[in-house]
Amino acid sequence: MLMLHHAPRSRSTGILWLLEELAVPFDVHHVDIRGNVAEEYRRIHPHKKVPALQDGDTIVTERAAICLYLCEKFPKAGLAPPIGDAQRAAFLSGLVYCDAVVDPCIAVRAQGWDADPSGLSFGRFEDMALHLERRLERGPYALGDTFTALDTQLGCAVLWGLQLFNLLPDKPAFRDYLARVTARPTFQRAMARDQQLAN
Amino acid sequence: MLMLHHAPRSRSTGILWLLEELAVPFDVHHVDIRGNVAEEYRRIHPHKKVPALQDGDTIVTERAAICLYLCEKFPKAGLAPPIGDAQRAAFLSGLVYCDAVVDPCIAVRAQGWDADPSGLSFGRFEDMALHLERRLERGPYALGDTFTALDTQLGCAVLWGLQLFNLLPDKPAFRDYLARVTARPTFQRAMARDQQLAN
Ligand SMILES: N[C@@H](CCC(=O)N[C@@H](CS)C(=O)NCC(=O)O)C(=O)O
Ligand SMILES: N[C@@H](CCC(=O)N[C@@H](CS)C(=O)NCC(=O)O)C(=O)O
Repeated sequence: MLMLHHAPRSRSTGILWLLEELAVPFDVHHVDIRGNVAEEYRRIHPHKKVPALQDGDTIVTERAAICLYLCEKFPKAGLAPPIGDAQRAAFLSGLVYCDAVVDPCIAVRAQGWDADPSGLSFGRFEDMALHLERRLERGPYALGDTFTALDTQLGCAVLWGLQLFNLLPDKPAFRDYLARVTARPTFQRAMARDQQLAN
Repeated sequence: MLMLHHAPRSRSTGILWLLEELAVPFDVHHVDIRGNVAEEYRRIHPHKKVPALQDGDTIVTERAAICLYLCEKFPKAGLAPPIGDAQRAAFLSGLVYCDAVVDPCIAVRAQGWDADPSGLSFGRFEDMALHLERRLERGPYALGDTFTALDTQLGCAVLWGLQLFNLLPDKPAFRDYLARVTARPTFQRAMARDQQLAN
């Protein structure tokens, strides 16, 4: 049985969503990241963070890696362009971009840091916001006509940047995309499970 | 023909190294990131950064994604554990960790920023440094006995953090790993090509 180490309303929500999209059975271990996380948990995650996915003896950390691992394990779900597909490069780049660029751009700005972005691998917030807007204008999904695992990650990133932090510009491309992806029953189920855990 | 958009002595050096490991023909386009990069280049990279890999009509950005793409395109090179392999999860997690955690931890510290790391996806520098040390102590390579594409990325990250920025602690695990991987002829060839471009 797969086990997701998870905290409600956190960066691991997109993985919960992806597991609902895959429609596979999984358990959730609630990691109390706002309280005290036992030092023991470092065996699972080197920074004592969530998400972490456990699959028997195998542990996967980092959201993009967890998405890739799950899509490889459940190829029939069709949530990733297969190897050799024309969309494969955009899928891989998009997943890494969510973790390595979108998230730090938003979080660093939320903390009010105002550094020289040229020395930083995540670069300028404005470049990121414009790139996402152009990408999502084409829509309906991150890669075009088909919903993929990337939309669970980008969906959560846009949700976070637009609604929680109010940092992404309030553009139709963002609002429409968000309305489209959050209307999915799988997102609703993930939110309900999240809510249950939070109580 | 593959084309690498590259700048000497930059974050794209690890991809140059990987291309040498793969022993495939490729062209290099020198992007003058320290000068003025034409706005046109944004079609290739949304932040006008390097590396970017062009393969016919396909463009791949983000180092971890480029590594995955290249390993999928050239599976016979054996630089990635195949799907289903016991090391696959560690390979995926490690590649994303290099971009999403190691690089920002080092770059942010290099800029002297002293933020609350708990709100940041890359987290604490100390957790990162300890995790890498424990991993490399087991050695000889990032995944154990076999050199993989991950070593081109982790090798460059350790080189950068230890020798260029002097921020990683000077531990035998780092020094020995670096000596081992930089002794490879492929690394030497990548450095020579880098040097040529820099002149
Ligand atoms: N690089 C990680 C980031 C994960 C992350 O930052 N998780 C947050 C959840 S919002 C966390 O566990 N924070 C608790 C802490 O850092 O102590 C990934 O992409 O998976
Ligand atoms: N997230 C990117 C980071 C790439 C990056 O930061 N590249 C630097 C090279 S050291 C760059 O092009 N900097 C020039 C600039 O930002 O203007 C990746 O992992 O591929």
